[in-house]
This record gives sequence, C-alpha cells and structure tokens, in this order.
Amino acid sequence: MHRPHITLLTDFGTADGYVAAMKGVIAAITPDAHVADATHDIPPGEVHAAAWVLAGYWRIYRQRTVHVVVVDPGVGSERRALAAEADGRLLVAPDNGVLTRVFAEATALNIVAITNLNFSRDVVSATFHGRDVFAPAAAHLARGHRLDELGPVINDPIQLSLPEPHRHDDGIDGEIIHVDRYGNLITNIPASWLPGRALVRVAGNELPLQRTYTDVDARQPLALIGSRDVMEISVRDGNAAYVLGVGRG
Amino acid sequence: MHRPHITLLTDFGTADGYVAAMKGVIAAITPDAHVADATHDIPPGEVHAAAWVLAGYWRIYRQRTVHVVVVDPGVGSERRALAAEADGRLLVAPDNGVLTRVFAEATALNIVAITNLNFSRDVVSATFHGRDVFAPAAAHLARGHRLDELGPVINDPIQLSLPEPHRHDDGIDGEIIHVDRYGNLITNIPASWLPGRALVRVAGNELPLQRTYTDVDARQPLALIGSRDVMEISVRDGNAAYVLGVGRG
Amino acid sequence: MHRPHITLLTDFGTADGYVAAMKGVIAAITPDAHVADATHDIPPGEVHAAAWVLAGYWRIYRQRTVHVVVVDPGVGSERRALAAEADGRLLVAPDNGVLTRVFAEATALNIVAITNLNFSRDVVSATFHGRDVFAPAAAHLARGHRLDELGPVINDPIQLSLPEPHRHDDGIDGEIIHVDRYGNLITNIPASWLPGRALVRVAGNELPLQRTYTDVDARQPLALIGSRDVMEISVRDGNAAYVLGVGRG
Repeated sequence: MHRPHITLLTDFGTADGYVAAMKGVIAAITPDAHVADATHDIPPGEVHAAAWVLAGYWRIYRQRTVHVVVVDPGVGSERRALAAEADGRLLVAPDNGVLTRVFAEATALNIVAITNLNFSRDVVSATFHGRDVFAPAAAHLARGHRLDELGPVINDPIQLSLPEPHRHDDGIDGEIIHVDRYGNLITNIPASWLPGRALVRVAGNELPLQRTYTDVDARQPLALIGSRDVMEISVRDGNAAYVLGVGRG
Repeated sequence: MHRPHITLLTDFGTADGYVAAMKGVIAAITPDAHVADATHDIPPGEVHAAAWVLAGYWRIYRQRTVHVVVVDPGVGSERRALAAEADGRLLVAPDNGVLTRVFAEATALNIVAITNLNFSRDVVSATFHGRDVFAPAAAHLARGHRLDELGPVINDPIQLSLPEPHRHDDGIDGEIIHVDRYGNLITNIPASWLPGRALVRVAGNELPLQRTYTDVDARQPLALIGSRDVMEISVRDGNAAYVLGVGRG
Repeated sequence: MHRPHITLLTDFGTADGYVAAMKGVIAAITPDAHVADATHDIPPGEVHAAAWVLAGYWRIYRQRTVHVVVVDPGVGSERRALAAEADGRLLVAPDNGVLTRVFAEATALNIVAITNLNFSRDVVSATFHGRDVFAPAAAHLARGHRLDELGPVINDPIQLSLPEPHRHDDGIDGEIIHVDRYGNLITNIPASWLPGRALVRVAGNELPLQRTYTDVDARQPLALIGSRDVMEISVRDGNAAYVLGVGRG
C-alpha cells in the first residue's frame, strides 16, 4: 500500500494562511498522506477557470487520489458540498459546477452530497468550508472511508454551461476558453476536428496552423495543437493575449 | 510513529530559490519529514501579518509538528533566534514578535534562545538565517532533539503591541488588523463580544451583521463572523477593501 | 533506504495546472517520492534567472535527489532534453544552458541526451515536455534507473555566456546578475575577491562594505556579502532596485 495522495486546488492564494489551515486539518486526520499543491492561484471565484485547470490533471493521478477543489463563492449558502468518484479518482468540491468537466469525461461516476457531520470539523464556520468540510472529508476518504459514508447519492449536480465549437460549410467556429500565464489563447476546438492544414482567423489576423512555436520567427503569432489537445493561439517568445488584444470568451 | 511534519512560513516568495535552499537543508537532516508550504507570500518584513497568519493554523496541526516562521528584517543583528514549544507544537522564529499571538494563546509554553552551533549550518551567513539557523534547528527538532539542547531558556521574548478592541456605552470600537486576498476586512472584535443583532459602522457605512455572504445581494457590503471567530467586513462577490476604500489599521 | 526526493523548478506559475500535471505524472510512476516545489515563478523564458536560482540549492540536497528544471522556450524544436549527474545529484532539463552553473560547479559530471522513449509518456506533445518528457524521466531516475538507460552520453551541452568580474589596478568591475524579491542587487563579485574594507560605486552612489543590514540606518543603502557568497547592494528595510533605479545587467 502506498501512502494516499491528496491534491489541493483553491482560489485562496497562500498569504492569508487559509491553505495552511486546510493542510493542518488533513495532517491531523491522515498524517502519512502526501499532499500536493495543485494551485491556489485560481482568480477569486472563477469557477470556469478552476474547472478547466482541474480537467488538465485529475485523471493523470493514480486511482484513489483525492482531489480537493475549493473555489466556492457560495460558501455558507444552501449550496451542497459534494464528494465524487470518477474513474477511480476521488473528488471533493462545492456543488457549483466546478466538477462539470470531470463529470463529462468520466466513464464510471458516483456522486454524494456530504451531509454526515462525523466527517466535518466539530464546528463548521459559515465562510471557510475548505477547512471545515472539504479538507476533513478528503482526509477521511484518503484514509479509506467509502463515498457512501459521507452522505446520500445525488444525480443532479450543478453543471456549467460550456461553450461548444461549431462546424460550418466554410470552417469551424470556436471560442477562447482560457488564457494561460504565457498569454496562450486556448480554444475549445479539439485537435480531432482539425485538418492537417488550416487557416485560423482571430481578431482580424489569419494564422497558419503549425506544429510548435519554433516553426515561426520570434515574436510571430501562430496556431497550434496545445498540450490539452485543443487548438491554441500563441506568439513565439511573446504573449498572444497582449499582442492580439484578445481574452477569454 | 508517523513521519514528522514541518511547515514553512516566510516572506521570501519562491522565485529566488531561498525557500528551495531551506527545504534542501531540511531534507539533508531529516529526509523522511513531510514539509508543507504554509506561505511564502507574507509581504516583505511584515511581522504583524505573519503573526496573524500563523495564529490561524499553528494549533490545528498535531503535536510535535515544527512550524518554521522566517520574517526577519533584523537578520544578522543581535536579535536572538528562538525555538519554542507551545501546547505541544514546536516553533522556530526570529525574536521579533512574530510569535506574539502563539505565546498569548498557549497554555503550556517553553522558549529557548538558539545558541548551540551544533544545530546550525557550519557557516552561518549574515543575511540568510532561514537556511543557516532556522531550517537546521527545525529539522533537528523534527528528528526528536529536545528544545533545551538548542540553547538556554528565556522568558523575555519580544512581544508585538496588538491593538485591542474597546467596549463603550454605545457600542464597541475595533480595528482592522488584516486584509485578505478577497479584500475581506478582518477586525479584532471577537464573536463572543457581539450580540445576535448589531449595526456596524465602517468608513461612513452602516452594515447589518449577517451570517454569510449570500445573506445580502451580489456586490453589497455586510459584516459577519469570519472563520477566525472575529468580525469581518466583506462585499459579496466583491472586494470590501476596494469598494469601501479601507485598509489595515 | 529513504524515499527519493524530487524538486521542481519551472516558469509555469501554478494557475494553469501545468505543475499539477507534472506532479501527477511523477506520482503515477513513483508514488512514494517526496516532491518539493523549488519555484514555479521564474519569469517566463528567463533561462539566466533559472540557472542562478538553481545554483543556490542544487548541491544542498542529498545525493540521488532529482532536480527537475523546466524553463524551456524552445520546447518542440530540435533542442535536446538532458539528464545529468553532478556530484551525485541528478538533474533533468532542456539543453538551453539552464544547467550552465551546475556544470561549472560540479567536480564529477555525466550528461546524457534523453532519447529512450520508454522513459517518456506514450504521446509526447509539441509544447509540454515538462509533463511528457522531464517529469517521467525524473520519476524513473528517482526509482533507481541509471542515467545511461535514458540515452547516449553527450559532451557538448549548450552553455550560457556568464558575465565575469574583472580586476583593475584601481578596483574590481562587476555586474548585477540577479535582483531578488527584496530588491537586493546581487553581483558577480565573489567574497574572496574583496578586501575587508571596500568602497562600492553603483549608479553614482558610493557605499561602504558592511556586514549586515542593521549596520546602517533604516532606508540607507549598503554593500555586503550575501548568502550566495557574492557582493550584494541592499537598502535596509527598503528596495535597492527601486531606490537606486538599477536592475540586472
């Protein structure tokens, strides 16, 4: 048996100690778990961004890994807290759509609402369920508790409405769904929809589809298939979001 | 026996490799310890902020955890280096007041000055005691060395002067002691001082005391009891520090 | 046998999930490894900064530690992927000079080009070798695979041209090679070149060489020997880069 793995994704930043408190709760319950920071730099409240980022790694981890996802602008309201098993990986998150992409990608899926107070802290605050609900639930799952011990099965999780690409006679219409640190513009157009050669129009520019950044000169824009198997718009050694004046949506 | 836990709080950021060096020192001395980043994003030299953040998590961790706290504008001067045991948790930090809140909260407390050079690196630089003094001291404590091996007991640690709230005939006067990533204005007024209903005046606004963010409409300000059991001023789905034009103090 | 240690240095930030994906790849191959974030905040594409930061910690870690270094503006081009053993520590990185300082400091050095596809992910993207090449190579090395299993020995790694200090009759000329979070200006003048007393000229200022920050008054500039054993220019409780209007180079 390997030590359990737990990953943490939040919009908390680290400077206020909220993440440190979550790690303390986990360490108290399951001291031998390996806890990995996925990110704490999701922009505050940006559920769409969190859903996109989570979809890039949840399945890479081995089975029984517990992914904690806390981007939770509705904390303290009646929104439910969820735990899920998706193709053998476990997830805990608020019921606000942040797991939409995981649910769409999973073949085998079970979802419960976390209602059993034995798996939360003794006192649950109105504003910090990361510490009081999600961290303890994750730690107990990592220790081997079953999903159905946490609460009843549900079948109606909140789902985000995700923008879909569209095929036309004269091409494909897509949307920019994420802008990364380098200014790469990541679209919702899957690689499998694209012919070997294509001309990409974005913000008045026409760009050829290339294989990698170094297929164009420095500071030149290009389109390519990125690491998430969708089309991205980039500028070699530059920032496409800045150079092209384009953002998400 | 579980592997020992060590947490790290600094104002180093991560981009310069100072934190990586501290982790290397720890790994060389106690390779099986679990090292958790609490935060490295304390604003440079902000001892008050570090003291507040530390108070939010130090006790959540299990006994024998070693909390490393390095916000140290006086590094290289005659300020002492401290190690402490507070209710079973261990701490290492410069003697500049950063442990004030821990000392105030602890029931059982022992403090020593780190003077035994056997627990520091062979060469101690004038400017980086995080690497040369605090990381090795923490690693040796995590391995099971006793506090009194590090140096003599002291009883006069530097203490910060913390602002206190005051009761008046017509209410309570408090102060904003921390502003978090979301712009929440965290005060020094404890929940236990507050009646069930209260009217809060801040920067010319009168706000009702609510239970959670979703008790008001989006973009509206409110007061509530936050996760640290003190009163906070927030704006639902917004930034109170920005909207109200208010900061710390 | 201790659990293997792996450190991660990238320019990815954490907000896009690229680091989380790398950690997932490592956890899947070597679940018991201890993975430490060195930094993910290297400015995008800044190979010189990464080389400097890495040099500050690579040797502090114990032997068999695997240092992953991914600052890789040439990803997807014909640039090679390297694995190296330097004085017992292992490194994986793109062949773009980022290991220059390690190579210069190491006494015992072996370098191979990573060409054996058994040590990469099944599908290697054109844009994310951190996930597809470097993380799996590091994980396999941490599990005990030998360097020469990854590919053929090479002797011509790309080397950065590093600025050298120069001695003159009337002093030493050096260069600022790094500016840290505190605004400290770190030069390439080694401590061993400096007499006990020296007068330092920078941007029209003449500064005495001191031992530590508190040897001058608050907000005053000074020169001192920093934690990397080279001369640094600082402002006590201030930011020398800002106050003196000076940057790298």
